[in-house]
Amino acid sequence: MTEKRRKFWGWGWEGEGLTDAELKRIDSFWASQFGAKDLEVTPPPDADEIDLRACRIPIPSSLERVCTTDHYERLVHSYGHSLADSIRIFRRDFSNPPDVVAFPRTEQEIVDVLDWCESAGAAAIPWGGGSSVVGGVEPPGQEAGDYKAAVTIDLARLDRVLEIDPVSEAARIQAGIYGPALEQQLKASGLTLRHFPQSFEFSTLGGWIATRSGGHFATLYTHIDDLVESLRVVTPSGVVETRRLPGSGAGPSPDRMFIGSEGIFGVITEAWMRLRKRPVSRAATTVKFADFYRAVDAVRAISQAGLYPANCRLLDAEESARAGAADGRHSLLVLTFESADHPLDAWIRRALEIAGDHGGEYDREALDSKDSHLEGAAGAWRKAFIRGCYLRENLTPRGIISDTFETAITWERFKDFHDNVKSDMHRVIKEVTGHQGWLTCRFTHVYPDGPAPYFTFAGLGNKNGMLEQFYELKKAASDSVVCRGGTVTHHHAVGRMHRPQYDRQRPVLFGSALGAIKRELDPHWILNPGVLIDRTS
Amino acid sequence: MTEKRRKFWGWGWEGEGLTDAELKRIDSFWASQFGAKDLEVTPPPDADEIDLRACRIPIPSSLERVCTTDHYERLVHSYGHSLADSIRIFRRDFSNPPDVVAFPRTEQEIVDVLDWCESAGAAAIPWGGGSSVVGGVEPPGQEAGDYKAAVTIDLARLDRVLEIDPVSEAARIQAGIYGPALEQQLKASGLTLRHFPQSFEFSTLGGWIATRSGGHFATLYTHIDDLVESLRVVTPSGVVETRRLPGSGAGPSPDRMFIGSEGIFGVITEAWMRLRKRPVSRAATTVKFADFYRAVDAVRAISQAGLYPANCRLLDAEESARAGAADGRHSLLVLTFESADHPLDAWIRRALEIAGDHGGEYDREALDSKDSHLEGAAGAWRKAFIRGCYLRENLTPRGIISDTFETAITWERFKDFHDNVKSDMHRVIKEVTGHQGWLTCRFTHVYPDGPAPYFTFAGLGNKNGMLEQFYELKKAASDSVVCRGGTVTHHHAVGRMHRPQYDRQRPVLFGSALGAIKRELDPHWILNPGVLIDRTS
Repeated sequence: MTEKRRKFWGWGWEGEGLTDAELKRIDSFWASQFGAKDLEVTPPPDADEIDLRACRIPIPSSLERVCTTDHYERLVHSYGHSLADSIRIFRRDFSNPPDVVAFPRTEQEIVDVLDWCESAGAAAIPWGGGSSVVGGVEPPGQEAGDYKAAVTIDLARLDRVLEIDPVSEAARIQAGIYGPALEQQLKASGLTLRHFPQSFEFSTLGGWIATRSGGHFATLYTHIDDLVESLRVVTPSGVVETRRLPGSGAGPSPDRMFIGSEGIFGVITEAWMRLRKRPVSRAATTVKFADFYRAVDAVRAISQAGLYPANCRLLDAEESARAGAADGRHSLLVLTFESADHPLDAWIRRALEIAGDHGGEYDREALDSKDSHLEGAAGAWRKAFIRGCYLRENLTPRGIISDTFETAITWERFKDFHDNVKSDMHRVIKEVTGHQGWLTCRFTHVYPDGPAPYFTFAGLGNKNGMLEQFYELKKAASDSVVCRGGTVTHHHAVGRMHRPQYDRQRPVLFGSALGAIKRELDPHWILNPGVLIDRTS
Repeated sequence: MTEKRRKFWGWGWEGEGLTDAELKRIDSFWASQFGAKDLEVTPPPDADEIDLRACRIPIPSSLERVCTTDHYERLVHSYGHSLADSIRIFRRDFSNPPDVVAFPRTEQEIVDVLDWCESAGAAAIPWGGGSSVVGGVEPPGQEAGDYKAAVTIDLARLDRVLEIDPVSEAARIQAGIYGPALEQQLKASGLTLRHFPQSFEFSTLGGWIATRSGGHFATLYTHIDDLVESLRVVTPSGVVETRRLPGSGAGPSPDRMFIGSEGIFGVITEAWMRLRKRPVSRAATTVKFADFYRAVDAVRAISQAGLYPANCRLLDAEESARAGAADGRHSLLVLTFESADHPLDAWIRRALEIAGDHGGEYDREALDSKDSHLEGAAGAWRKAFIRGCYLRENLTPRGIISDTFETAITWERFKDFHDNVKSDMHRVIKEVTGHQGWLTCRFTHVYPDGPAPYFTFAGLGNKNGMLEQFYELKKAASDSVVCRGGTVTHHHAVGRMHRPQYDRQRPVLFGSALGAIKRELDPHWILNPGVLIDRTS
């Protein structure tokens, strides 16, 4: 029996992906979009056809059991999952692979690998599931500094729930655990983290924390941030362990310094995470709106009402239609309440009253069905969401540029913001690709003071210039979002790809402060160089 | 008409305080506690009887309009409101007053004062309402470094709500505004911050943010932290302004670096704060429990149920009795739900069901009265809470050591923690004072993973050695809390008084990181030296 391997050129396991029927639908959909029939499909690369640069540093004998230079592992760890990564993969461009991939099984082995990287002058790249869409896990280029080599530290062997505290509803969990294994190991306790980013199957707890991942809950526990009770982090200067506390007011939060630090201060090895009982009640429905901005007002009112729905996902008319969930004229609000404690009639009744006040229509019959999230419009969207991870490896080889960008903005600016971002992007897609493209919007998370809009766009690319086309579009999207007052990312992280706009958004002195912390914790500047900040020591 | 002046030796305005009737009750209460009749009462100091050290630096002419060396202002700004402060005040010990008090009216004036402090080698102490109970606002002692003088920067002139955004329910507010003025200026908008620390009347927005103040809400929005949308901070290296965002995942949160920084990185000048509509529905009641730990289990279950009460304040039997709210045999749970949007029957009904499952008894008749928080047991407690600020200035001159300490701890450790802290403190009070003392406990805030217990203790002191007695008791309390796994403070901040235990609780490398940030933002180390960290440059 051979072990399952991750695809090095796409999402998920080797041999898994979209079905023939799904591919057929894609082909006809894109043909109808761009009038482009029979898109030529570049085949995915074969591992054997890629020549990798020879490993540039010798592995010390003490680390031989931990480290590998295996061809396939170096391929898998060359890229994350951005469109730029996908384009380069289909171009067979693996010109900057990690020299070595380490699979530490203990914290001491991480310490040893970091010590080695320091003494060898190698960059060290912490790796969770590798699902970064922002260039957060690839070896640094020359611009990030003069490194002799790149060592990727894959945490996958640190994959256990170590301790469960059923009274406080928390668990101590190793950082390298993948989403499904995490939930599986918690299952017997009746507790769940319920943090489901789209990458859930192939991303890890440590990755979620390092990147401020956004999960299942549309309100309150949106980011992983609030689910972290305490952390252990191996930095090149030593280990940091914060105290398990439900709340504290003792100085600035040490956890918050590491949450979102994207591997530049240290390697997160474990965390005490706040859990909850598995929900037993659910109240869910889908509300249709003829007008998008009236739907926005409804969502705003719901988010300011103190009702805290688990899901409050607004899809604009086009996005709903594309997911097969609506007629293309209505925006859809997928609204779910869930609880491990009580029935939710009062909650959803009031939310629907608010939606109704803003012109929302909904099917009273479909209310309160336990599995309603698996049915109807919401179910259709949910399925498309999960299968969506497999789209990229099929669109890129067809020359279709399809990507997403996401942000957050206060409510009072949203309408102008949305109008402008849409028109910016429509114009730029036309300019860059020569064809009309499209752009849709949904809200992934909502706050009392504003939504987190998530945009999906597509255009017909030109395979020869596709990488450059993508960079132009990506720059336009990030510029538009940041110039117009949003954040460059609500939950995709900064990595290298969002750096120019992040640098603009971030207070200059906060950048200096991050540099000062970096020099203290990672004085040789080996960890993930080029991510978040530039080298200043 | 003369302007109202703050008392320099106690709480609130000159001429205000406890009534004769209240004082009479105090005297008889404490006499019954300690069998000490007719406690001798040291009179409060008179401003004229205090000789202050001459101001050690000349004020530059450009800052004459901003700065004062007025005798009374220097007295008022010599101390916060800890028991140690009160004891020293009644001892007429004003040996380390600020040399100068600055009242900047603009951000530029703060910049100018900081520049002057840097060039003059003076320490700069940011001052909100001065309600610190942890030595967070007094001029530094010799141990903090060699400063030529101390300049206290009182933000009281920055006292306006500058801008209200009714759509996103947020407002831009100057940091020096006091609680009542803040709510007053918001009133016409129908919005409220609803952050009511006990010090509310005499503390400021900037102070709350700098110290991670804990407010009205027992769940969810417990600390000021989550109410901050963005910040402006004047540091000696320049101004930091973060972006107004409802949520972000772009690197570690810059706001969180300043929230809880207690004035060591910069002077917070304004913030965009998240508001809410004023509540129109309320459901409140008080639940009695014969057994404290069964009450604790009830509170835990409620806090894990996703109901999010605004108030969920558990008082142990002694504390309830002392507040005149119960019979001394029952613990009381003050439970309130409030909403600006919907009636709360379903919410409180379920919470009471949970309380009932754990042996709680409550009066069904008293339910849902709009003003029930002003009546009955909850009302009695609330009144005692507000008047409590005036106790210190009356107990200290009677030689009564009465203080509070507070923490947070996960649920699974709470019972042992509580038993041990209680027995530690009972033993130490007896050892230190020679008399039996008392200690009560309540929960001020609760989280799904643990409560924030708040302890009140008292003992009969010896006026000659009272300061030393207090330090011994304070050390015992903080040691007990931190050794047994709690945080040294849930919302009173660290200041100078909690430093020894904070240093133990805080990861060493996080301390180094704070030092690195400090050297970057305040290279001459002028801001609030001795608070949070030691000088390392």
